[in-house]
Amino acid sequence: MKVLVIGGDGYCGWATALYLSNRGYDVGILDSLVRRHWDNELCLDTLTPIAPIQQRLKRWKDLTGKTIDLFIGDITNYEFLDKTLNQFEPQAVVHFGEQRSAPFSMIDREHAVLTQVNNVVGTLNLLYIIKERFPDCHLVKLGTMGEYGTPNIDIEEGYITIEHNGRKDTLPYPKQPGSMYHLSKVHDSHNIHFACKIWGLRATDLNQGIVYGVLTEETGMDDLLINRLDYDGIFGTALNRFCIQAAVGHPLTVYGTGGQTRGLLDIRDTVRCVELAIATPANPGEFRVFNQFTEMFSVGDLATMVQNAGSALGIKVEVQNTDNPRIEKEEHYFNAKNTNLLDLGLQPHFLSDSLLDSLLNFTMKYKHRVDESQILPKVTWKR
Amino acid sequence: MKVLVIGGDGYCGWATALYLSNRGYDVGILDSLVRRHWDNELCLDTLTPIAPIQQRLKRWKDLTGKTIDLFIGDITNYEFLDKTLNQFEPQAVVHFGEQRSAPFSMIDREHAVLTQVNNVVGTLNLLYIIKERFPDCHLVKLGTMGEYGTPNIDIEEGYITIEHNGRKDTLPYPKQPGSMYHLSKVHDSHNIHFACKIWGLRATDLNQGIVYGVLTEETGMDDLLINRLDYDGIFGTALNRFCIQAAVGHPLTVYGTGGQTRGLLDIRDTVRCVELAIATPANPGEFRVFNQFTEMFSVGDLATMVQNAGSALGIKVEVQNTDNPRIEKEEHYFNAKNTNLLDLGLQPHFLSDSLLDSLLNFTMKYKHRVDESQILPKVTWKR
Repeated sequence: MKVLVIGGDGYCGWATALYLSNRGYDVGILDSLVRRHWDNELCLDTLTPIAPIQQRLKRWKDLTGKTIDLFIGDITNYEFLDKTLNQFEPQAVVHFGEQRSAPFSMIDREHAVLTQVNNVVGTLNLLYIIKERFPDCHLVKLGTMGEYGTPNIDIEEGYITIEHNGRKDTLPYPKQPGSMYHLSKVHDSHNIHFACKIWGLRATDLNQGIVYGVLTEETGMDDLLINRLDYDGIFGTALNRFCIQAAVGHPLTVYGTGGQTRGLLDIRDTVRCVELAIATPANPGEFRVFNQFTEMFSVGDLATMVQNAGSALGIKVEVQNTDNPRIEKEEHYFNAKNTNLLDLGLQPHFLSDSLLDSLLNFTMKYKHRVDESQILPKVTWKR
Repeated sequence: MKVLVIGGDGYCGWATALYLSNRGYDVGILDSLVRRHWDNELCLDTLTPIAPIQQRLKRWKDLTGKTIDLFIGDITNYEFLDKTLNQFEPQAVVHFGEQRSAPFSMIDREHAVLTQVNNVVGTLNLLYIIKERFPDCHLVKLGTMGEYGTPNIDIEEGYITIEHNGRKDTLPYPKQPGSMYHLSKVHDSHNIHFACKIWGLRATDLNQGIVYGVLTEETGMDDLLINRLDYDGIFGTALNRFCIQAAVGHPLTVYGTGGQTRGLLDIRDTVRCVELAIATPANPGEFRVFNQFTEMFSVGDLATMVQNAGSALGIKVEVQNTDNPRIEKEEHYFNAKNTNLLDLGLQPHFLSDSLLDSLLNFTMKYKHRVDESQILPKVTWKR
């Protein structure tokens, strides 16, 4: 099966492209490489030295004999996207190709507008081309658990059945996104849902939690295949960020009380979830929503776990509750469903001491690359 | 009070600007005039001969002694919008300045992208300038009842209290918009809600139904103040369109079975609702939602009413159920709440024989201007 991975040079995209290639899918990568450009603009760098995408793909070919086609360009450029899809003829498109950082989107108006226009227009272009030329192609789109916010009721997978004044309907789950970035994902969800309903397209929205870990079977094969690992205040996410902070002896930056609870998953489950979605496509006209996480933790719990894992390795780790740069509830109810992917056969890699141990050892190896001035958050949500 | 009406050259915007000016508000109009440009592009024209905005405003000054400031430019141009707001210093902004036609947004990909980018970016720019410079300014934003779609439960005003698995929360009402245009309004609602929550802005979202009628006290004062009245397949809306069809002896174009039920209101209530919203602003941090309609009718009912009103005037009116160019439910439950504006004192102009009689007579006066080739819908929702 031919699968185009948009954003295949990124953290989740790269791991997914290699995994699918390894599993026998005929994979293409479409990427504008703008994320590397943003790193340059903001003077950030991944902990790990990542090779240029062309070298990565050559190495993959040399190691495995498998070819991954590369299309460098921007999906907000309709002509480029149209040409690429017509050339590659995908049966499934996995769409990671969006600006994915909440703090990036909150830097200022320009970054908010960039994020929303980039994400919404790229996805609209994709929907129109799929409609026009590949109506049977399955769109697997990365959403986020952050679309739901933190409601005081259980979070279902995309839809909720509501009884109201003696009547009943199943409606899209109400969304309360917490940043200009998360809003862009909510906009995407509404647009894709509409396209499925009106044009009979097939789509799966993967509302992903916070991804942690760096090694997959494929990215661990060779140094040239190494994946990116972000620790900075813009692109770094909880747990990965904490491990790197622990490695360099920086206090773990828990925002506010740390009572924020989120869904998380191992990057080895990200790639598996995407494959499960591809292998059992949504039906024509179906906008299918999966909550893609395996466990729920509070940020404070994650910090404590890293602290304990550090102790076991003889590293003294301090936890520091810093002023929360975001505006969000720090103590709240959070109970999200995630049975759809389990029903398709997902066998989760639960967060374990051995994973934390391995991730800490991995980050120790590269800690000389850390720019400590990039650790603390500089972007705030406040007026 | 200083009120800036964005989109003040349009159908609802023009009537609102004059009404507020007449009621003693210090009014400014900001408009890019792009709607007149779109009419040119699509070779459409309003039934009524509308004067250039500059002549309209001069006539208003001559008649009433009241000055309305005019700012011609595009709110997606941040520098222009920033300069204008700093010069005018509004205490309230009424935002009609969006692409407002569902069929226009469904012409093709370009028009979908234009609609969503134009509407979302314009509103984002406005939110950022209000946050930076006028945090106390009240944003009164035109939404649409079409954001809700046609759920099988009662439609509340913006929020719904949901009991689920033994817990309870009040959440944004789920949205099921039916076109790329309606989607853009849903995106706006989420963006504005977030801005209120994070930055403490005040906003009122007026989810307006289908507006009918053309005369208000102010626009009826003089031929140079006449309002636009659209009858074409792109910008014409039910009831207004039917009256013009009746006037020229064209069968009334009921899409599908005509069982589609919608909220409607007289344009004299539109202007009053906006004033009610301005006069009692939302609180800081509040994203207030009003459903702005006064009555619910099915499209078929509206056609029958126009047919009967025509008979009374001796005009034979035929009703034709045409293929529905849209994809929408044609028979469905629809029961929407609209008590918020009534509670603020709205005294509705219910749809009456005398209004239909007056509207039919008005359209008869200008029927020589009708281009019959523009009556039927040419844009379809289908793949």
